[in-house]
Amino acid sequence: MRVAYLGPEGTFTYKATKSLFLDSDEFVDIKPIGRVIKYLEEDKVDYAVVPAENYYNGWVNNTIDALTRSNVNIIKEKAFPIVHCFAALKNRKDITQILSKDQAIEQCDSYLTKNYPDSDLVYVTSTADAVKQVVETPLVNAGVIASEGIINQYEGLELLAKDICPNNKTRFIVLGNGKTHSTGDDKTFIAVHPHVKDLPLILARSLLPLGLANVNLEYISSRPDHEGGHYFYLEADGHENDEAIKKSLDFTRYILDPNLEYPDTIRILGSYPNTHWKD
Amino acid sequence: MRVAYLGPEGTFTYKATKSLFLDSDEFVDIKPIGRVIKYLEEDKVDYAVVPAENYYNGWVNNTIDALTRSNVNIIKEKAFPIVHCFAALKNRKDITQILSKDQAIEQCDSYLTKNYPDSDLVYVTSTADAVKQVVETPLVNAGVIASEGIINQYEGLELLAKDICPNNKTRFIVLGNGKTHSTGDDKTFIAVHPHVKDLPLILARSLLPLGLANVNLEYISSRPDHEGGHYFYLEADGHENDEAIKKSLDFTRYILDPNLEYPDTIRILGSYPNTHWKD
Repeated sequence: MRVAYLGPEGTFTYKATKSLFLDSDEFVDIKPIGRVIKYLEEDKVDYAVVPAENYYNGWVNNTIDALTRSNVNIIKEKAFPIVHCFAALKNRKDITQILSKDQAIEQCDSYLTKNYPDSDLVYVTSTADAVKQVVETPLVNAGVIASEGIINQYEGLELLAKDICPNNKTRFIVLGNGKTHSTGDDKTFIAVHPHVKDLPLILARSLLPLGLANVNLEYISSRPDHEGGHYFYLEADGHENDEAIKKSLDFTRYILDPNLEYPDTIRILGSYPNTHWKD
Repeated sequence: MRVAYLGPEGTFTYKATKSLFLDSDEFVDIKPIGRVIKYLEEDKVDYAVVPAENYYNGWVNNTIDALTRSNVNIIKEKAFPIVHCFAALKNRKDITQILSKDQAIEQCDSYLTKNYPDSDLVYVTSTADAVKQVVETPLVNAGVIASEGIINQYEGLELLAKDICPNNKTRFIVLGNGKTHSTGDDKTFIAVHPHVKDLPLILARSLLPLGLANVNLEYISSRPDHEGGHYFYLEADGHENDEAIKKSLDFTRYILDPNLEYPDTIRILGSYPNTHWKD
């Protein structure tokens, strides 16, 4: 099996990919997300793995946008804990600055605001880089946010706090060119793209049929389609072959596009087993 | 007037802030977004400016989350064009790698995929840093994405393409402790936080009253509240004092929280003049 993933090697996406496939599979690291998906579309690989959503930062919009423009499907989801730790040099003085990757600093905002409210925040390209700078400069006034694994690689560092952003997880999705069978506990990701602007109640029309058929929605967002309209993205409980979802989307398509002029009015981006990763 | 903004100096937020206020005002640069808003809440400044939404990357979730936890209001919006340019050394050879900040690379994905599909992408901390590395190393096989202003600072660089991510804009918002009067063409940002889980049609209940009262929604998204529930964020056309919005939200509050147990079921994050920045 050939699997493309959002590189480089060593990142969280790499670790997720390795744990989702076999050691005997072949892995190809690609950047950015748009190209990973293109690679799969062109059949250069069998599957692709990209980050979908972080518990704190929300959905990765680049993943949503690239999926919409593609014809690949989400076939699996899996979340992995992201455990951020706080460290500083053993021979440190007062901590007046914090180094890390921007996303790590943002995710740990509560911890930093509580414990180091006046510190200077320094964004570097990766958490590995942050640790390296603190140790090699050395920065005796710096604290650093990174994984325990990276921190433990350096003798001179002391781990001051573990898991400073509790419950932090990132959900990754496996993409493929095929479809997944129903397991009885699935989710379906749907893009609704109404081509009529200024239709009264356009959002309600896009959502109500699913609600009236008792389909629960776990996520919704709107994104501009860059033509003056919107895409609505919905993550619904159930499989695309479930009667409730099929009937609702049939009806939604009818009320949004009665003359079947726009084939992309509704596109199902995939059904996949529900891992209940936020519970 | 004292104004806090998401620093550091020289960034797009800095430029937006300078153009929104007077030269005689006093500016304080703070990182990250959570602290900018806290600073305003504690009355250490009169106003604060933070990025809200990029035309391609969508809403800044950190801004939404920090606003929700605060009691400050959005009082103004203004969008600024973000013009990315592509450059390389005058004495360059084949371009095999592209350097820039991650967001710039993602925004220019179409251009890069079309023109340099096989190039290696190198993420650095800022566009200014990317240009510096290309010139000072020097990297004869590198292209770089940055603003025209930064590129023009270096003699050895040649501008190869201008505005490679057309229509790219970022909307900034001004925050304050007061409210803004109606101008007749306003928008209102609303956080709906239903405390009942698994209520049937919970999303429809949160949205329908506005739709039935003919209030147009320009944006919607759901964010986890980290207690097993969701916040729904809505950007509606109209001012919070408009009868249609007042009556709709009164009714929404009633159907979601009939016994008035949860004061945060509906919170208006501000009304502000509509600049129609996406038109």
